Amino acid sequence: MATGHSVRYPAADLSRYAAQLFAAAGCDGDKPNTIAAALVEADLLGHTTHGLQLAPTYLGELESGGMTPHGEPDVVADRGAAVTWDGRRLPGVWLTARAVDLAVDRAATYGVVTVVIRQSHHIGCLAAFLQRATDRGLMITIASSDPAVASVAPFGGRKAVFTPNPFAVGIPTDGDPILIDISASITTNGMAGRLRREGKRFPGPWALDATGQPTDDPTELFADPPGTLLPTGGADHGHKGYGLALMVEALTQGLTGFGRAEAPRRWGASVFVQVIDPAVFGGADAFRRETGWLAATCRATPPVPGVDAVRLPGERGLANKRRALAVGVDLYPGILEALAPFAKKYGVQELAPQSEG
Amino acid sequence: MATGHSVRYPAADLSRYAAQLFAAAGCDGDKPNTIAAALVEADLLGHTTHGLQLAPTYLGELESGGMTPHGEPDVVADRGAAVTWDGRRLPGVWLTARAVDLAVDRAATYGVVTVVIRQSHHIGCLAAFLQRATDRGLMITIASSDPAVASVAPFGGRKAVFTPNPFAVGIPTDGDPILIDISASITTNGMAGRLRREGKRFPGPWALDATGQPTDDPTELFADPPGTLLPTGGADHGHKGYGLALMVEALTQGLTGFGRAEAPRRWGASVFVQVIDPAVFGGADAFRRETGWLAATCRATPPVPGVDAVRLPGERGLANKRRALAVGVDLYPGILEALAPFAKKYGVQELAPQSEG
Repeated sequence: MATGHSVRYPAADLSRYAAQLFAAAGCDGDKPNTIAAALVEADLLGHTTHGLQLAPTYLGELESGGMTPHGEPDVVADRGAAVTWDGRRLPGVWLTARAVDLAVDRAATYGVVTVVIRQSHHIGCLAAFLQRATDRGLMITIASSDPAVASVAPFGGRKAVFTPNPFAVGIPTDGDPILIDISASITTNGMAGRLRREGKRFPGPWALDATGQPTDDPTELFADPPGTLLPTGGADHGHKGYGLALMVEALTQGLTGFGRAEAPRRWGASVFVQVIDPAVFGGADAFRRETGWLAATCRATPPVPGVDAVRLPGERGLANKRRALAVGVDLYPGILEALAPFAKKYGVQELAPQSEG
Repeated sequence: MATGHSVRYPAADLSRYAAQLFAAAGCDGDKPNTIAAALVEADLLGHTTHGLQLAPTYLGELESGGMTPHGEPDVVADRGAAVTWDGRRLPGVWLTARAVDLAVDRAATYGVVTVVIRQSHHIGCLAAFLQRATDRGLMITIASSDPAVASVAPFGGRKAVFTPNPFAVGIPTDGDPILIDISASITTNGMAGRLRREGKRFPGPWALDATGQPTDDPTELFADPPGTLLPTGGADHGHKGYGLALMVEALTQGLTGFGRAEAPRRWGASVFVQVIDPAVFGGADAFRRETGWLAATCRATPPVPGVDAVRLPGERGLANKRRALAVGVDLYPGILEALAPFAKKYGVQELAPQSEG
């Protein structure tokens, strides 16, 4: 009998279980299935801090009224290629999937379609949405920020102004897509919290304490006064991450017109989605030729000492996904335990593990 | 009498002088004035490696036939909001200014306008184009890569695949715009060359030698076999810069359909320009409210020890520009000396310095 880390679950079972929980929590229409599938997709890709680990928190938000369970976003503006929604604090994972699908549907008509969402709830793992576009030969960018939260300081400062401001880019090639998922800070709030709980340190001086001194101690983020996450580039060249942070703030909070200036207090997100159809520019075949050449060349690059091979962003995640779809998802410990109280309360049957094949 | 670094030149005189040289070298129409103004704009902003220092090289390219002096780009595709040009190796500085102006003109109609250019010549300083959009309340992104050159390795590799792949973002606010000008590598080819000529080192381990060991020695880039520039994030978290490099390659070479797969040998650029009108999304006033709040908050952030004040990207450049417009441009040494042979050859009167006021 399998125990601990060797307990695996079929992805379809995880999706069904999570969908049942979100439906029982009041989510209408296709929201339960869409949310569940996107969270499991994050686990499949190995983004374990942004997969089903978020489900208990989302369910808690649905219970407290922090997340709106039903209905549609309000359309603030729709100019065909430029769309603005008010998300009404609907589940951000569902809103983002809808925004991507809308942009994908319109991409062939306009070439570039941009959808921005204000007052979305948390959108989860950005990388989990990329293949909705790349599977159709489209390039996609997703960016997100939370105007109610701050953990990253402007470069040269020691008080937080930004969230890590993730952005993800999906690039189709002649083979697997390139799936980039980065952020304007070296690490994330989720990772800082996890390392703190586990009594671990950052691998480098990825944060500042409240006095502005670099530190590898994640507990500094939770001190009073709190430290800050360093922007990408760190103390050495953090002006780069600072620039990225400002770019994402403008794309998300600026374009939606809802951000820190409103001083929101509730956990949420402002979101930017842009889908580009290469066929409308230099041509779909030419695009794949360039990106395919690039992917092959990167993989063939001789590695530095200590690295076995150069990989593309997303390569490890896609390999993880194929393996997990074949042998089951190796969930990060504690997740099903956190979901169990909701299952009991809602009368949903708990999930039985599948032992390793 | 002023000497050395205290020799200053009125910006208008520098522009006029450079425009005369480009006209004498065969550039037609508005090209001489546009190229000269954009190069001087880079010097005004303090981007001294990408200002008039490039003029002698551009003039040399015009003489050798590497840069096309006259005519228009070929329109490969024009879908209103999505435009693709073949630049026919015309001056990239002029092509980019034209692309920005076209996107600015159409932004109110489409919300987002994207222009990509293949077979452009070198486009100079990306930041020099941003205010063409931000002065009208528009957000702008410019990205560029040179498919004929490689100096940056994929993260984990030790052979160059990318150029530094700069991208710049202009964000209007309720005051000065935010002018972001960053790249996918920690430093640039231009800076490596300058430090090498001056016998200096990088401030940190910003490069790898050919065996893959981090180094601060810019001469490693010019060794045989050559070292590589590290992506943004360095040896610590260079996967971020690697992601940015791939994103810029896809936006520039992928969308234009002209890139490394064609193995071009001549110095040039593939270019991406995108202009966004906030008025078509959540509203121009709302955008300025958010970005204005952000700018004020960043400036008011308490600084880390050793930093006098937190600045916004572009703040120092705009201050430099105001000062230089008032008292003259303090040209980096050697530039006028490099232009003198062209002036003699073309019968253009050389520029007399203005002593400091």
